Parts: sequence; structure tokens; C-alpha cells
Amino acid sequence: MKLNCDLGESFGAWQMGLDDEVMPHIDMANIACGFHGGDSDVMANTLALAKQHKVMIGAHPSYPDKQGFGRRSMVLTPQELSNCLHYQIAAIEGMARVQGLSLEYVKPHGALYNDMMVDETILTTVMQAVASYPSKLKLMILATANAEQHQQLAKQYQIELILEAFADRQYTDEGLLVSRSMVGSVHDKPALIAQVKQLLATGCVTTRSGKQLPLHADSLCVHGDNAAGIALIEEIKALCHTN
Amino acid sequence: MKLNCDLGESFGAWQMGLDDEVMPHIDMANIACGFHGGDSDVMANTLALAKQHKVMIGAHPSYPDKQGFGRRSMVLTPQELSNCLHYQIAAIEGMARVQGLSLEYVKPHGALYNDMMVDETILTTVMQAVASYPSKLKLMILATANAEQHQQLAKQYQIELILEAFADRQYTDEGLLVSRSMVGSVHDKPALIAQVKQLLATGCVTTRSGKQLPLHADSLCVHGDNAAGIALIEEIKALCHTN
Amino acid sequence: MKLNCDLGESFGAWQMGLDDEVMPHIDMANIACGFHGGDSDVMANTLALAKQHKVMIGAHPSYPDKQGFGRRSMVLTPQELSNCLHYQIAAIEGMARVQGLSLEYVKPHGALYNDMMVDETILTTVMQAVASYPSKLKLMILATANAEQHQQLAKQYQIELILEAFADRQYTDEGLLVSRSMVGSVHDKPALIAQVKQLLATGCVTTRSGKQLPLHADSLCVHGDNAAGIALIEEIKALCHTN
Amino acid sequence: MKLNCDLGESFGAWQMGLDDEVMPHIDMANIACGFHGGDSDVMANTLALAKQHKVMIGAHPSYPDKQGFGRRSMVLTPQELSNCLHYQIAAIEGMARVQGLSLEYVKPHGALYNDMMVDETILTTVMQAVASYPSKLKLMILATANAEQHQQLAKQYQIELILEAFADRQYTDEGLLVSRSMVGSVHDKPALIAQVKQLLATGCVTTRSGKQLPLHADSLCVHGDNAAGIALIEEIKALCHTN
Repeated sequence: MKLNCDLGESFGAWQMGLDDEVMPHIDMANIACGFHGGDSDVMANTLALAKQHKVMIGAHPSYPDKQGFGRRSMVLTPQELSNCLHYQIAAIEGMARVQGLSLEYVKPHGALYNDMMVDETILTTVMQAVASYPSKLKLMILATANAEQHQQLAKQYQIELILEAFADRQYTDEGLLVSRSMVGSVHDKPALIAQVKQLLATGCVTTRSGKQLPLHADSLCVHGDNAAGIALIEEIKALCHTN
Repeated sequence: MKLNCDLGESFGAWQMGLDDEVMPHIDMANIACGFHGGDSDVMANTLALAKQHKVMIGAHPSYPDKQGFGRRSMVLTPQELSNCLHYQIAAIEGMARVQGLSLEYVKPHGALYNDMMVDETILTTVMQAVASYPSKLKLMILATANAEQHQQLAKQYQIELILEAFADRQYTDEGLLVSRSMVGSVHDKPALIAQVKQLLATGCVTTRSGKQLPLHADSLCVHGDNAAGIALIEEIKALCHTN
Repeated sequence: MKLNCDLGESFGAWQMGLDDEVMPHIDMANIACGFHGGDSDVMANTLALAKQHKVMIGAHPSYPDKQGFGRRSMVLTPQELSNCLHYQIAAIEGMARVQGLSLEYVKPHGALYNDMMVDETILTTVMQAVASYPSKLKLMILATANAEQHQQLAKQYQIELILEAFADRQYTDEGLLVSRSMVGSVHDKPALIAQVKQLLATGCVTTRSGKQLPLHADSLCVHGDNAAGIALIEEIKALCHTN
Repeated sequence: MKLNCDLGESFGAWQMGLDDEVMPHIDMANIACGFHGGDSDVMANTLALAKQHKVMIGAHPSYPDKQGFGRRSMVLTPQELSNCLHYQIAAIEGMARVQGLSLEYVKPHGALYNDMMVDETILTTVMQAVASYPSKLKLMILATANAEQHQQLAKQYQIELILEAFADRQYTDEGLLVSRSMVGSVHDKPALIAQVKQLLATGCVTTRSGKQLPLHADSLCVHGDNAAGIALIEEIKALCHTN
């Protein structure tokens, strides 16, 4: 079970995330491309850090909305969304190649990620954009109860999926994340560790309603915003390696 | 003598330039990368247009200043400038590859272009950025009286230069463009045609002071902002093909 | 019947609209505030032009989306939307005061305008933002079949409405504009002139379904994007003055 | 001796500065206007915080450069600079009035501040912009050896100056700040406290070369980026109140 984390989300003089401390512990770095976070300097530095720690790199593209950090849905046409994705993927891929690195996958960010998981037109547009990009890239999406259907769709576009699960988030019966606005939606540390152990041991999570939901996850998403987060990443990593 | 033109400088709902009418007549399209003009949609459309007319494509990167259209100098560190160039080159190159096109060269825009021609630190940074980009790209700069020295510098970075001359602009004795704020700095049509003919026949331009200045230009920069400009491009093209 | 027009939507080096030619013919200028169009220079110039022609001025605020020209819906919280409106209204009002002008009203732009007419939470937020701004400002919205209800709501916030109608657009039975994507939604010149005459003579428009819909409009929205548009504005103005 | 501090420099999801902890200890808040830091939400929150602690508020306008945090010089025409200042001053002033607050002064930020102190054309443009703004505003600039001359200039524009000194920065003999790139340019805590005491007791600072330079400062600029900074502000405040 590989650990992935959103990185490179600083912007100009503004710092975000403890990238230096997270990078040594993760397997896959989702790197912002300058549309919700990141800029050309942050991207170059984050790529250098990933190279140093031999971490696999992915593009982390977003709706074009820095003030909203890509967390506000925007209504783009499929063509606009596709171009917007190609631009961001191209920018990070070329900058990765400057450092001798290969871009391996794409993980949409924030509102785009959420929209894609509930709106098939958007998911299809994302898949098409990844498929039509000239380098072979995988697409990271949420492992849900619809994983089988998502795999079918991906096969049509001849792209490979990376399915990710969340350690710290409560799930609906459909395998979507319970909205952060709901009480209990974000796990405290014991619940988080329990969910990771359960996922590793049984391949299931217990949903908000109490159901056992199987999730075939290839990767776990972790967060490195503060010291507690870093400590948790190390614990989760140890659990994954034990299994 | 190849004709090059700045294209793809529209932005969102704002149109600039008669790209559809210019593209059929030119040999090289300098395509904006989203920092002074252009956006992901404009770039995709401009690349498609270049493909249709089999026009060679170059990146046209700029200082990050949309409001100022890249025409205001900004003080960037060499590292910032290099990252800023890599980002833009990467974005246009990846989007070109989506359409099966190869990026061939880089021509800096506006204030960055002017700064580079008078400040060797900036020129060196630009050359280094182009040289360190993983695809083999040429660099288009102004053909001046210092062309020999520029060629030596380019050789150090193992990049090839494309030297361009301007049809419509008056020259200083150093081979720089006389500032647009000076009377007589921008030629009217007869003077422009005369300058093209002279350049094609003798390889020289007559400077503001009356001196004959040899310019070994590989390309002529033309403008397609309005109907008169398009007509001029066609005339210039005919002159070039006759020679 | 006053004529209003969206103006000041150029940005940096990009021109939009024939503001110089429109301004002499209209009564109210809706001036962009830098979020979808306009910038500090364009705003200063547009205000000077309005002053010269003694045209009443209004703020024309938008979602923060230059690439999308404010035409893409964005999901903002009421607080975000309110702050976003206050910022834009404040910017244009202060710049107007620099030139000795008073801001009189607010007309939301593009997607925000459309969203406000179909989502009462957004309309309420807009009204609250206009009401809580320290200068007395009117709010311009679409004159629809719900005008009575909108007036009630405005009364609660102690703001005055300006109801506008469109000369060139077909209406639904609810008094909303038929989407531009529908055939026949944008009138040709004879249909446009007929709609203006009908509105002036009877206070009604004929909807897409053929119904006579009363619209109590205080102002007509006109467009000055090209020479034909300018000519139309002059014709419409003559009709309004005759009545 | 009043304490002033740059505040409201967070942007979107990015935090900067411990504004909540600084505000109770200072007299004057220089609030970013959205061009180098701040956005409409940050501005509204910072104004509310200033109101709560009864802190005098000033506009902190900048060159339009978020990525560079307003720290990179940009070449603007006087007209562009003036409009750019009016826009930012207007935005913060209107948002202040929404909360029943009065804007009292303007302090340019970063590269604009530095440029203004060494380029009289820029200083003149800034003074003119402040003078032509319809609300009576003071201008905060650096107290230097040229203070007398600056006062004369300000008198021409009928604006009042607030002269500020820096606690933590070494001075040149001209009363300018020694560049941060020079060793010893930023004082450690003992040197900082010594400089404050000296300034309060004698009205002088000791320059890098060892000269006693009189500085008639009305305000001291302090920084609240971290816990140590907050503690220092409290110490400096105690020193000022004792004197």
C-alpha cells in the first residue's frame, strides 16, 4: 500500500505544508501545477526534493482558482477542462524532465477531484485528457463502491487507474467521503489508525452507517500540514510495511 | 528569409491579432504561453492553426504580467527567470505534443526580449534555461552588431541561435531597435518595403544615423494586427521568395 | 426608459467594446471592476469618459474569473460573495470619487447576474451586500414575472431596484432570458426593434411560447461591441425619446 | 512613538503572520489591499480585528505581483502607478467604511516602498496619488536624512507625512536601510533593543559606518511573523510607553 501526499502547494512567499519533512516518508508526491497552489519556483524545488528522496511524482492539476485554492467548483466546458488539464500536466512534466524525472500519474485536486467522482461527464473528460496526453500517465481517483465501473471506463480510454483511500475520512455507503461539514467526518487519531488497520487487514472500511464496504485501494492519501501529521504518516507507513 | 510572427496573444474573451489570416502566410509562429497573453484554450487553438498550415512553432515566454502584457520590466533572480521560462516552455511544448507537433525554438517576449538584448546576465540566463530544457530548442534573438559575440555565447551553451530582423523598425548603430517613443522609429510602408529590399539585397540596414549596418538575419519579424498588416505580410513574403 | 450598457471591459493591452462611441448615446454605464474585465487604468479612463458625457455610473462586479470573463458560475459562500462585492464596489466607487463622480448603482455581471436571478440565496446575498455598503446604492436586476416579489425583498433590505429589460433577447414565460444556445434566442434587428416598440407601447414582451408578459422595466440593456451595435443604440434611443 | 505593523498579508488558503496576536499590541495596522497579499476575505477579517482592538488603519498598496509578494520592482508609468494606488486605496477604504472604520494613511509596500525612497519621480507620483484621493490621508515613508526635503515636497501636495523608523534594521549614513543581503543588516535582539532605546532617548541611530544619524520618527515598524516577534513587539511597546 503506497502513501501519496499533496505537495508543492506553497505559492510565492506563502508556505503551505511541511514538504521537507513529508517527502522522506511517502511513495508518491502529487505536485501542484500553479493553478490552485505552486508556482514555477515552488514546482522546481518540490521536484528536486522528490528526486532527492526518489519519490514517484504525479501532476496535481486544479480548476484555475488560487484565491479559492481550487476548492470552489467552476463550470468549465469539457474542452476548457481538457485544455486546462493539458496545460498543467505539460508544465509539471516539462519541469520534471529538466531534472531528469518522469511524470507517472495525474491526480485532480480539490473541487475538481470531488466533481469528477460524482459527475461522469467530468470524469470522462478527465480520462480523455489523460489518455490524449502524449506521455503514458496513470489517473489517481477515489476507490469507491463504483471502482469496477470506473475500471471499465478507464479501459475504454486505455489508461490505468490508481485507486486511493483516505485514512482520516469517514465514508458513505457509496464509498464517497462524508462531507467535512458533518460531525464525525474527519477521524481522530485512534479512529484513523483503526481505519488503516482494517483496510490493510480486510480490505474494507466501516461506513458512517456501519456497513462493511470493500475498497480495493492501491494507495493511501496522507497529509503533512503539521508535526502531528508527520508523526501520523510515520505510524501509517510502519503499519503498511508490516502488512 | 523566414517570416516569424507573435501569435496566440488573445486571452479569455479578449481577441488580439488576426491569427487566422496571418498563419497561412508565415513560416514561424511565436506562441504566447499564458504569462503575458494566451491561455490554455487560446494555446490549443493556435497550435491547431499552426498544424493546419504546417507552420514551425516556437514558445513565446514572458515576464508574468498579464495587465502589462509583458511589456514592463520585472527584476527576477536568474533562478526565478529560469524556472519561469521552463514552466512556459514546458506548457506549450506538452500542449504541442498533444497535437503531434514539435516545439522548435524559444523567442522571449516584450520587456524580457528587450532586457535580454541589453543585459548579458539576462541573456545568459535565457540561454542557460533553453540549453537545460530537455528538448533541443533554438533561441531567437535580435540580429545586432554583436551577433558574433552572441553566437560565441550560444556555442558555450550548445544552443543554436535564430537571428531576426525587423522590417518596420528603425535601427541604432548598435543594431538595436530605436525606441518607439522616438519620431521616425516605426517605418511607414514605403520605408518598411525599402528596408526589406535592402536587407535582402545587401544584408544591411541603414541606421538612424545613416550608417550601413550589416545584419545576418535568419528571419524577419512581421505583425498581423489588422488588415493593412496582413497585406504587408503578403508583400514581404513575395519579396522574400523573389530573392 | 434609460439605456444602460456594460463598459470598461477592456483589460491591459486587450480592447473590448467601442466605449468611446457608445458612451455619448447611453444614460447609465455599468463599469467593470477588475475581476472579469477592466483594470485600474481602464477604470480610470472609463470613468473619465462617463464624466465627459455626463453618464450615470454603476459598479459591474463579477465572480473573480478573468479567463472565463465572469461567465462561469463559481460556488462562493455568502460571506465570500459579499466581501468580493464590497471589494469591487469600493474600488470603483473610490476611483469615481477621485474624479468627482458618485457611484449610483450596482449591476452584477455574467454568471453572477444569471445565478442571482434563479437562486434566491445569491440574490439575498447580493442585496445584503449592496445594503450594507455605506454609500446609498441601487441594485439593477432583470425585470421578470417575479418583479413584485423582488421588490418586496429589496424593501426588506431598504434598497431600491432598477429593473432592466433586454432589447435583443427572447424571454421565457417567467421573464427570464432564453439561453443563447437556443435557436431564436437572440433577436435579429427587426425583431429587436419590434420588441422595443412593444415594450414602450404596451409594457409587455411576447415570450418564446407566444404569451404577452408585462415587464415593468426602468432601463433597457444595449450592447456596443461593433458598428452595427452602435447604430442600433442610436435607433433604440430615438424610439425611447419619442415615447 | 507609535508601533506600526504590516498585516492582512495572508491570501486565500495561505496564512502569513500572526495577525491575531500582533493586533492587540500595535497602534497602526498597514493592511494589504490584494495586490501583493490579502484578498477580499482577508481584508474584511483584518479590518474587523483592527476594529476590535481600536487600531488605526492604513492602506498597504503594492506593485501588482502576488507571486513576487510585491518585492520585485516593476516599471510602471506615473499614470499606471497612480491608478494602481487609487484602486487599492479605494478598495480598502470602502471595505473599512462597511465596518464603520476610517482609513487614515497609506504606506506603500515592498519594492514600491524602496523604489519611492530612492527615486523622486516615484515618490512624487505616490504623493500626488495620495493627495488626489478624495479622503484626507497621510503618507507613511521612511525617516531618512532627507526628511526635511520630503516634508517640503509633501507640503507642496498638501499631505501630511508619517515618518517611520525600523527597530531591527541597520542604517546607511543617508538613513536608508542597509540591504538585507549585507552581513549585519538585520539586528539580533540585543542590537534591536539598543537601537530602540537609542532612538527613544536621543532621536538618533548609529549607522553602519558608526555615525550618529538623527531620525525624527513618528512610528516604529515592527514584525509579527512568529512567537519571538510577538514577544519583541511587547518589549518594544513597553520601552515606548516608558519613554
